Amino acid sequence: MTVEFISVGTEILLGNIVNTNAAYLSEKCAALGLSCYYQCVVGDNEERLAECLQAAVKRSDFVILSGGLGPTQDDLTKETAAQVMGRKLVMDKHSKDRIKKYFDKLGKEIPDNNWKQAMVPEGGIAIDNDNGTAPGIIIEDGNIHVILLPGPPNELIPMFEKDIIPYIRQFVPGTIYSQTVKICGIGESKAESMVRDLIDGQENPTIAPYAKTGEVHLRVTARAENVKEAKKLLKPMVKELKSRFGACIYSTEDDVTLERAVAELLVANKLTVSCAESCTGGMLAARLINVPGISEVFKSGYITYSNKAKRRILGVKKATLEKFGAVSAATASEMAKGVAVLSKADVSVSITGLAGPDGGTEEKPVGLVYIACKVKGNVTVEEFRFTGNRNKIRESSTAAALGLMRRCVLEYYSKVTFGNGTGEQGRK
Amino acid sequence: MTVEFISVGTEILLGNIVNTNAAYLSEKCAALGLSCYYQCVVGDNEERLAECLQAAVKRSDFVILSGGLGPTQDDLTKETAAQVMGRKLVMDKHSKDRIKKYFDKLGKEIPDNNWKQAMVPEGGIAIDNDNGTAPGIIIEDGNIHVILLPGPPNELIPMFEKDIIPYIRQFVPGTIYSQTVKICGIGESKAESMVRDLIDGQENPTIAPYAKTGEVHLRVTARAENVKEAKKLLKPMVKELKSRFGACIYSTEDDVTLERAVAELLVANKLTVSCAESCTGGMLAARLINVPGISEVFKSGYITYSNKAKRRILGVKKATLEKFGAVSAATASEMAKGVAVLSKADVSVSITGLAGPDGGTEEKPVGLVYIACKVKGNVTVEEFRFTGNRNKIRESSTAAALGLMRRCVLEYYSKVTFGNGTGEQGRK
Repeated sequence: MTVEFISVGTEILLGNIVNTNAAYLSEKCAALGLSCYYQCVVGDNEERLAECLQAAVKRSDFVILSGGLGPTQDDLTKETAAQVMGRKLVMDKHSKDRIKKYFDKLGKEIPDNNWKQAMVPEGGIAIDNDNGTAPGIIIEDGNIHVILLPGPPNELIPMFEKDIIPYIRQFVPGTIYSQTVKICGIGESKAESMVRDLIDGQENPTIAPYAKTGEVHLRVTARAENVKEAKKLLKPMVKELKSRFGACIYSTEDDVTLERAVAELLVANKLTVSCAESCTGGMLAARLINVPGISEVFKSGYITYSNKAKRRILGVKKATLEKFGAVSAATASEMAKGVAVLSKADVSVSITGLAGPDGGTEEKPVGLVYIACKVKGNVTVEEFRFTGNRNKIRESSTAAALGLMRRCVLEYYSKVTFGNGTGEQGRK
Repeated sequence: MTVEFISVGTEILLGNIVNTNAAYLSEKCAALGLSCYYQCVVGDNEERLAECLQAAVKRSDFVILSGGLGPTQDDLTKETAAQVMGRKLVMDKHSKDRIKKYFDKLGKEIPDNNWKQAMVPEGGIAIDNDNGTAPGIIIEDGNIHVILLPGPPNELIPMFEKDIIPYIRQFVPGTIYSQTVKICGIGESKAESMVRDLIDGQENPTIAPYAKTGEVHLRVTARAENVKEAKKLLKPMVKELKSRFGACIYSTEDDVTLERAVAELLVANKLTVSCAESCTGGMLAARLINVPGISEVFKSGYITYSNKAKRRILGVKKATLEKFGAVSAATASEMAKGVAVLSKADVSVSITGLAGPDGGTEEKPVGLVYIACKVKGNVTVEEFRFTGNRNKIRESSTAAALGLMRRCVLEYYSKVTFGNGTGEQGRK
C-alpha cells in the first residue's frame, strides 16, 4: 500500500522552517510497511492544494496532509479537502466541547475564529488533539484514506503515535514489525560500515540506519503473516547487531530515549546525579529532567558559564584556569569534583567547551569540548571535537555527556567493557 | 516569476534524512524575488520523476532539481531531464577534464562509471562543481529554465551561491523585500484577530502570521522595482503594526531571537542575570547561553528540581514549601530572591511548575507554572496555565520566562507600559 504526504504551509515554501514533519511521517510510515513515492509542499492556497490532493488521491492509498488547520483565515486545508472529497463541513459537538474546555482551562475567552476548528467534513472522523485546539480528521472514500493533521510537530507527533498509527495498521495486509537498535558512542559512517554487509544482502528483514545527534538508530523491519512470524524473522538479525555493537547499544525499545536509558541506569543502581555545565548552559540537566520520575535521583545542576562562577561555585582553582584554560581536561575534572563535593551526588558530570562562533584558536578550535564524569572515586575525562554551528556543538556535547555517563556507570558497576574501535563520535 | 523544487532521493522518502536543501533553496529563491508554489520529492525512479518534471515545466519559470547526479546506475536525474526536455546527452569536454583533474588530485584511478558525470544534455550549460565530481546543469527552453544540482548540501550550496544566484538574477524583474515583526506575550489567535483587517485588505505589502512557542511572527513582504521602493512600501505597514502591538514587539530583525532580544536588553542596561529552575531544569539558562556574548551578563544558573535542593541551595523556607507547596507563587518568589542573594545578580528569574505527566490535582493541574522575576528590589510573580505534553509545557514556560524578564526590565528601566489585553499567552 502507498502513502503520500502533502505539507501545507507558506512558511515551508518560503524556507522559514525545515519540513521535519515530512521526515518524521516518512520514517513512521516506512516502519508501518507503506511505500512512499511522492511528497509535496504547497502553500495555503485553495486552488494549488486542491490540484495536489486530486493528483494524490488518484495514485496513493493514504494521503496525509499536515498544516493549515489553525484558526486563522489563512488556514484552509480542511475546507479544501472537504471540497475535493465532496463533503460539506458540519459542526462536531465533541470537538466543540474540547475547544471550550481547552480555553476554560486557560481561563480565557474563546476567540470567535476558534470555532472554525470544530467543523469537520461530513462523515469524517475527528481525532482529539491533546496539545492544541485543532482536531485531526480522517476522511474515508472507498479504499482511499485522507488524513489531516495539525502542522506543529508537538501536536502532530503525539496524535500520529496515539491514533493514526493504530488506524493505518488495520488496513496494512500481513504484518510489518520493526525493532530499533539504538546505539550511542559510534558515528554514523562507522556504524554503517559495520553493517554494510548486512544491508547489501538484505531481503527480509531489512536494516535502515538513521543518524541522530550523537546517536545512530538501526531499524530492523520484517514482513510476515503475523507478529509472531515477524518477530521470529527479526530475532537473529537483532542478535547479530547486538554481537557487533555490544555495550554501545543503549536500548531496543521504541520509547526509550538516551536520557531515559541513563536515568533508568541511575535509578537501578540507586545512584544520585548532579551536573555542572558551561557551554551547554543547562541542556544536559534539561534533557535529564525531561524524564518523568528523575526527581528520585537528580540532586542539582549548576550553570557556571563564566570563569568566576566556575571558581566561586564549583571551587575550580585559579591556577588551573590560568595554566590550562577554561576549556581543558583539568578544568572539566575540577568542575566534576567540585559539583560532587557540593551536592554529595554519587555521579557528577561536567561539560566545558568552545561552542563558537568566536573564540577559537588553532590550538583550541571551536568545537573542542571536554566532558568529565565522576562515579564515586573514579574520574574519567574525554576530549571531543565537534563540528557545526553553536547550537549543534552544544547538542552534540549534551548527547556525548549522556553517553559518557552511561559508559562510566556501566564500567564501574557492571564491569562492562566497551569494545575497541567504538570510540565516541567526535572523540579525538 | 515562479520557481519549483524537485528533490530526488529515496533517502528523503524513507525519512532517513531531512530535506534541508529544499529549505535552503526556498529561502534563497524567496530572497531573489521568485515565488515558490510547489515543492516535491520523488525517488530515483524515471517514470515518476518525468511525471513531476513535466508538471513543473508547465507551471513554473524555474525548475530546480537536486540529487541523483551521482555516478551510479540509480542516479538518473540528468537522463530523465534530458528526455523530458527532448535533448540527447553529449560528452562535455570541460567537465571531462575537471573530473580527470579531480581524481588526479586525489591520486586515484577514475572509476569507469564516473565518465557518465561528464555527459550533458545537448545545448545545456555545465556548471563547475568545486566540491565533487558531478557538474550542475542548466537547460534553457524558451522562458523555462531547468536547473540540475548535486544533492549533497556541501556541493549544492556553494554551487548555488557562486553560479546559480547570478544566473537567476538576470531574469528577475524588480525585487522582493520582507521584514518580520516579532511579538511575545500574545497568542496566535489573538494576534491574528488584531491584524485581521490588514490581512483582509492586503495587496502589497502582504502580512503572514507564523506561530512559534510563546511567540508570534508577522512577516510583512513587499514587491517593487528596487529595494528602496520596496522598503518604502513596507514602512507604513510596519509602523501600523508597531502602533498596534507596542511594547510586545521584541524585534523586527531577522536574526534576533527572543533570547537575544532579552540578552541585548540586559547588556544595554548593564544588568547581570541569574536563574533558578525547577521543572524547566536548565532550559531557560540553555536558551540564554545560546546567545554568543551572553557571558558579559550571565552570572550563574541553579537547577533545583527537588524540594531539598530548593531549600538547601536557594534557601526557600521549609514553612513556605509546607504551606503553599513547591508549585506556588510564594516558592517562586523565594527562589528568585534566593538566587539573587547567592549570585548578586541584578535580575533573577525562577521557574517552578508541574510539567506532568503525573502529579496534577484539581487544585494544581499539570501545566500550572509560576515564574518570578526580581529586578533590583522589585519582585513580579506570574501564574501560567499551559497545555501540552511535558516537553511542550517546559518550552512554553521557558518562553514565558523570557517574556516576563523582558517586560520586568522594560517596566523598571524604561517605564514602558504594556497595553491592556495583551497578557502573556497562557496567563490566567
